[in-house]
Amino acid sequence: MAKAETLKPRLPRGFIDRRADAIAAQGRMLETIRQTFELYGFEALETPFIEYTEALGKFLPDLDRPNEGVFSFQDDDESWLSLRYDLTAPLARHVAEHFDALPKPYRSFRNGYVFRNEKPGPGRFRQFMQFDADIVGAGSVAADAEICMLMADTLDRLGLQGQYVVKVNNRKVLDGVMAAIGLAGDDKAGQRLTVLRAIDKLDRLGVEGVRQLLGPGRKDESGDFTKGAGLGDEEVGQLVQFLGFGKGTEGPDASNAAYLGALTSLYPEGLAAEGVRELKEMAALVTAAGYGRDRIQMDVSVVRGLEYYTGPVYEAELTFPVTNEAGETVRFGSVAGGGRYDGLVGRFRAEPVPATGFSIGVSRLFSALQLVGSPLLAGVDKPGPVVVLVLDRDNIADYQRLVSTLRAEGIRAELYLGGSGMKAQMKYADRRGSPCAIIQGSNEREAGEVQIKDLIEGARAAESIASNAEWKAARPAQFSVPEAEMVARVKEVLAQHFP
Amino acid sequence: MAKAETLKPRLPRGFIDRRADAIAAQGRMLETIRQTFELYGFEALETPFIEYTEALGKFLPDLDRPNEGVFSFQDDDESWLSLRYDLTAPLARHVAEHFDALPKPYRSFRNGYVFRNEKPGPGRFRQFMQFDADIVGAGSVAADAEICMLMADTLDRLGLQGQYVVKVNNRKVLDGVMAAIGLAGDDKAGQRLTVLRAIDKLDRLGVEGVRQLLGPGRKDESGDFTKGAGLGDEEVGQLVQFLGFGKGTEGPDASNAAYLGALTSLYPEGLAAEGVRELKEMAALVTAAGYGRDRIQMDVSVVRGLEYYTGPVYEAELTFPVTNEAGETVRFGSVAGGGRYDGLVGRFRAEPVPATGFSIGVSRLFSALQLVGSPLLAGVDKPGPVVVLVLDRDNIADYQRLVSTLRAEGIRAELYLGGSGMKAQMKYADRRGSPCAIIQGSNEREAGEVQIKDLIEGARAAESIASNAEWKAARPAQFSVPEAEMVARVKEVLAQHFP
Repeated sequence: MAKAETLKPRLPRGFIDRRADAIAAQGRMLETIRQTFELYGFEALETPFIEYTEALGKFLPDLDRPNEGVFSFQDDDESWLSLRYDLTAPLARHVAEHFDALPKPYRSFRNGYVFRNEKPGPGRFRQFMQFDADIVGAGSVAADAEICMLMADTLDRLGLQGQYVVKVNNRKVLDGVMAAIGLAGDDKAGQRLTVLRAIDKLDRLGVEGVRQLLGPGRKDESGDFTKGAGLGDEEVGQLVQFLGFGKGTEGPDASNAAYLGALTSLYPEGLAAEGVRELKEMAALVTAAGYGRDRIQMDVSVVRGLEYYTGPVYEAELTFPVTNEAGETVRFGSVAGGGRYDGLVGRFRAEPVPATGFSIGVSRLFSALQLVGSPLLAGVDKPGPVVVLVLDRDNIADYQRLVSTLRAEGIRAELYLGGSGMKAQMKYADRRGSPCAIIQGSNEREAGEVQIKDLIEGARAAESIASNAEWKAARPAQFSVPEAEMVARVKEVLAQHFP
Repeated sequence: MAKAETLKPRLPRGFIDRRADAIAAQGRMLETIRQTFELYGFEALETPFIEYTEALGKFLPDLDRPNEGVFSFQDDDESWLSLRYDLTAPLARHVAEHFDALPKPYRSFRNGYVFRNEKPGPGRFRQFMQFDADIVGAGSVAADAEICMLMADTLDRLGLQGQYVVKVNNRKVLDGVMAAIGLAGDDKAGQRLTVLRAIDKLDRLGVEGVRQLLGPGRKDESGDFTKGAGLGDEEVGQLVQFLGFGKGTEGPDASNAAYLGALTSLYPEGLAAEGVRELKEMAALVTAAGYGRDRIQMDVSVVRGLEYYTGPVYEAELTFPVTNEAGETVRFGSVAGGGRYDGLVGRFRAEPVPATGFSIGVSRLFSALQLVGSPLLAGVDKPGPVVVLVLDRDNIADYQRLVSTLRAEGIRAELYLGGSGMKAQMKYADRRGSPCAIIQGSNEREAGEVQIKDLIEGARAAESIASNAEWKAARPAQFSVPEAEMVARVKEVLAQHFP
């Protein structure tokens, strides 16, 4: 092929490759999450990446035009298919499709990649992983309490004790407050959604930004203008005051009961009162199970941007400080969230089916574990393969036999398969993180021996030996053994460096 | 939502959901494959599901029109994107993109779903999983020998000892034979590909079907006509004779050396001879490493349908009998295959980069393990969760506390979250495969006790107790214990049934 015809090897924006180290470390995190979910009685479910577009519905936040945000294409019968954009819509489809065959309540977990056809940015990908747990068929807030405790226990088991809080609210509280400022009724549904999405940005934009989004709108640093909810100053003021409820006034002995007691006196009746009553029920359950306000915290400022939530909503926030792009010290923030969505399965059925669940943002949570140096990620280092060098191509079958002998004993090993000389082969072994190399020249072969070069010890010795001449004379950490002893001696070297 | 508006919950054809049992059993298989690949020094790599269409190229078998077979869609800058249809094309892109940063030879493995926009059928899905291992940057057939030994060892470790054979051929042999019947030269490339694809169907269509496809063409049972390669009777006869080389004449002591010796005398020179020489080199390596012709078998009838192979090709075939759709007894057949593809990475670079590797068809291999009753899949059964029943909704916080106590001790447990009565709750526990249920009525609560109902022992006893009255009197396998002893006694029940 002529050079002019060569393609540029590259990925579309917002997609990445992952190498072995990252896969292994993240794999440990996923395994811990899975074990915790199973401890709670949840069982695995897997759905395909492609679904009918109409089965997925349009529930993405910040999505007002159809087809935006989702990768879609037509099947050969012209029906529209889409790549899943979350793991909740496919679950709703699965449960509706197999309703009678499933035990109910149905506890399931799923993890896998989802796709968003959005503008990628730093830390914002078009393919990213979620890990979800849901309970379908349980209308009681005891199910929501379970989900919140599961979120807390999962973060504990990931080594984040004392560094997170699961915040809980109830959409009914907010709906009651919105009704009180004139936003009740079906014709106000769009405006209510705009208000929800504005409030959901509180952490990111601060109170002033949210004020603008509740009112006329907001222009960001890049000059882009986001249309606001169009509320008047009086209404904006009431909402902002509501969002600040309880903020900054609590002592170290704060309890969910005290917080909710104060809230009750503010909203003695109506929809908001019903929401507060549900929060109280949840608080009683988590308190009885030993979860204090330091771990599961009722907080009326939590919203979640998705339209389909109908009751309790929750968000797991990591509390340790990080520096944001603007150089400010902020909390790490949300790594998981969810809520009750009693209408989603009902899209497929004559009657509503209650459901609640949450979703972990896997790569964001993984970044957090890396930041805090979670013990879970430590010790992922494994030795590289033992590399058997090839000094003499005519005897490659002999070298292959040495490799097979090592593998048969469970020792990770490989034959050097390149065409380069001794020096390049040693460099290769180094790059592969090999603990030792096996060397057999014609002298060793005749004597029935191999040389074992301990590369870890060798690197250490090299640091302490000053001159090149001295180095060559010492030949540190390299020794001859009879072939029959090769396996035992390699095991000794491995045991020494990876006890 | 009115009933008329409800959506039908369904998946597009060729896509399936998978439940917990299948996920767990297949997970064990995948883990064994991964461990074997790591033993050989291969390391994990993950690439995204979406790539530029042109980066993937058009290398699917049976694909002559552009865009057929692949799910494609346009990005917002109008460039074409596709879902990956295999794991080899993305590897070639990755290696070309990160060429200087990778150790070479580069051994990697990948597993994940790939997508084909083809007509689905029984056992033929539009989303299916592959598990690949490849060596890039090694031009020597020692690398191909490694791949074949890896295939054999992987099948051994999956419990298929003595039930498979890895068949090996070399495209150069076949190219030499085709040249001898006048199919040399660039202008015959299309005809050669048709010949390759015809031969690749030998197992499925038998000799007569292949004869037709090499000649004028073949009409299948449904009446569809597949155009043939258009060879004359003389040429077809020569090819068919070649494909039968060595068939049915070997004794139990057959060796690759004897087979290849006979082949050499048939093709003493030219491209075919070069191919035979490479096969001999591979045979020497695998023989030295202890793999006999019963496991790795040189066989000139192996072709592989992909256009991009340039040298050795291989296929792992399971040899145990199954009954096909026509009611005939046939070998289970191919579960993995691969070959050397020295030109694929070179699409992105000025110089060719040698590469070789293979791909396992995961769901087909999994079906095979289920058929032979592989010990690997046995013992996946785990106890379901302990279910704490809810007899009295006002005391749900107490029940929640019992659940948390069990979980804190590592016992998989859940609170019954439905709204049904005692009988339905017991039925639920049964459906969940619970080893035991925890029951606490008001009497037990006052006495500080719980009842533990051993559901496995209970089911056994129920079979042997004839009358209902007798059953009620005996209350088999149900006993009261102080709350403080609950965990210990539940552990006893678990240990008894799942030692």
